[in-house]
Amino acid sequence: MSVRELGELGLIRRIREGGTGAPAAGVPVGIGDDAAMLAVTPGSALLATTDLVIEDVHFRRAWATPADVGWKAMAVNLSDIAAMGGVPRWALVALAVPGDTPSSDVDAFYAGLREAAAPHGVAIVGGDTSQSPHGWLVNVTLLGEHPGRPRLRSAARAGDVIAVTGSLGRSAAGLAVLELGADEARRRGVPGTVIDEVTRAHLRPRARVAEGQWLGAARGVHAMLDCSDGLATDLGHICRESAVAARVDLARVPIASGAAATARALGHEPIQWAIAGGEDYELLLTCEPGDAERLSADFRAGTGTSFTVIGEIQAGKPGIDWIGADGRPVPLPAGFEHFRG
Amino acid sequence: MSVRELGELGLIRRIREGGTGAPAAGVPVGIGDDAAMLAVTPGSALLATTDLVIEDVHFRRAWATPADVGWKAMAVNLSDIAAMGGVPRWALVALAVPGDTPSSDVDAFYAGLREAAAPHGVAIVGGDTSQSPHGWLVNVTLLGEHPGRPRLRSAARAGDVIAVTGSLGRSAAGLAVLELGADEARRRGVPGTVIDEVTRAHLRPRARVAEGQWLGAARGVHAMLDCSDGLATDLGHICRESAVAARVDLARVPIASGAAATARALGHEPIQWAIAGGEDYELLLTCEPGDAERLSADFRAGTGTSFTVIGEIQAGKPGIDWIGADGRPVPLPAGFEHFRG
Repeated sequence: MSVRELGELGLIRRIREGGTGAPAAGVPVGIGDDAAMLAVTPGSALLATTDLVIEDVHFRRAWATPADVGWKAMAVNLSDIAAMGGVPRWALVALAVPGDTPSSDVDAFYAGLREAAAPHGVAIVGGDTSQSPHGWLVNVTLLGEHPGRPRLRSAARAGDVIAVTGSLGRSAAGLAVLELGADEARRRGVPGTVIDEVTRAHLRPRARVAEGQWLGAARGVHAMLDCSDGLATDLGHICRESAVAARVDLARVPIASGAAATARALGHEPIQWAIAGGEDYELLLTCEPGDAERLSADFRAGTGTSFTVIGEIQAGKPGIDWIGADGRPVPLPAGFEHFRG
Repeated sequence: MSVRELGELGLIRRIREGGTGAPAAGVPVGIGDDAAMLAVTPGSALLATTDLVIEDVHFRRAWATPADVGWKAMAVNLSDIAAMGGVPRWALVALAVPGDTPSSDVDAFYAGLREAAAPHGVAIVGGDTSQSPHGWLVNVTLLGEHPGRPRLRSAARAGDVIAVTGSLGRSAAGLAVLELGADEARRRGVPGTVIDEVTRAHLRPRARVAEGQWLGAARGVHAMLDCSDGLATDLGHICRESAVAARVDLARVPIASGAAATARALGHEPIQWAIAGGEDYELLLTCEPGDAERLSADFRAGTGTSFTVIGEIQAGKPGIDWIGADGRPVPLPAGFEHFRG
């Protein structure tokens, strides 16, 4: 059955019934009224973020299933709340699809959303549905809570070290494989396990929610944001908002092994993917230089996630010096930017 | 300059600079970080609603300016908060446009949004921007506050009277004129002042925010929602959510004079526009029968807006009987529903 046959009211009924049925915590009024009503924990500040996910801009139906689209639309918002050190709570989901879309595709989309949301206790509390004249259009707004002072992009100080969680480049490697086709990538020598790893990283990214809360509460952390547009663009945000410069040692940037293996087989430069690829959803932060070693060890012990120092913040005009193995600056392209991408 | 030449970062800078510059109330962190941080008034519940506005589904560029699109995207969300009896506070605005869109069109869109938001003290605190492969895509999420128990769709009781604020049909009349073209409508005899009135009602609807707060706090009001999909569909929501039936006297439905004048000239039935047209953004409510007369008089005195009793809620299977002048049921088409519209 298509969504046209099901109709908007039938669709909304399915979305409501697709929930657990149990009332979510802090939701006096959920899906089904003009607005959701939510009970923010006394003493907590509210966090709010929103992200568009558009067919043929953010994904292609040729390689992303409806469940992948739902997962990622939730994950990118989870990552924004994570980057503030917050606790994700409630989501509003707006979906527009062509009238001939099978209703099972819409079911799969919400199942993917819920699968990404469930481990974090996030409930879908409202949204909107509409016909789309061209392709799928998704907008997810995620609300979260924060106990106190968040880690802002504007909080970097000259002398801070720059660190990143996990490793970079896997998502861009996955996109390269998806655009090429997995069969062709295999033919060119990318191992099957690597194909699975990098495409999954692109289609089903995991937001660093626990890591963001850990770092958000840790002494010595100054600025923090998520690496969604690529290290170059995202570190640029910190520099601009904090009115500082940055220096990054390229040799210290942690390149994901899957990205390196994919790059070898396809004849790419993995450092390009790590710096300009984006969508790895790792956390990028600056901290007191004297706290870096302790933070790194405690963070790894507390979360199981790695923490790599890649450079330092310097006084100066906003901008990034990328330093090569010979200690000299290397010219590098910018990260992803919409309308210029 | 196009948004492609401006780039995403340039665009976001313009959006930030387009604000008043003054920090908005209750916004410790606004546009420019991973998420906005908001201070909900202690003791208040949070309201959250979201609405898609899509080119060639919700509007046509042939007759809606970018400022109209911005205004309406804000107004439809204001109406949802109004229908809960809440106070609108903060908006997140997601906008996707083709890369060759003039940046002045984007400026005009945000100016329209702000013009609709300003009288209610609503601040734009975040959002997202993206390239669109086809046409304009807008999603606005509006957050509000509520002092206590909201008026829900599920609160109607058998014996309640049904009432509506203001009058109906003007927006549908405006859409008919816009689709026909104002010149052709004038040629067919729709007076110029009526054309201005009905097209403005469609393009620049006014949400009943003060009226919603008044009714939300008034003794005797049970269910409430906004007439966005048309009286037939919206009263159907109340019936379904409250598990009751409804009876409406067609002769009592307040038809806007501009709708009646447009219908006369164009050979339409204005009651069809009033019942199935939608987008009038009046409030539809049910209340204790013994309170209706007092509510009507006090509401008119308190807000300057009319309040018309149009029927009553009855025990029975969800559904609406439309009663004609002869006291007998009249078959009527349903209101607007996406995917079937």
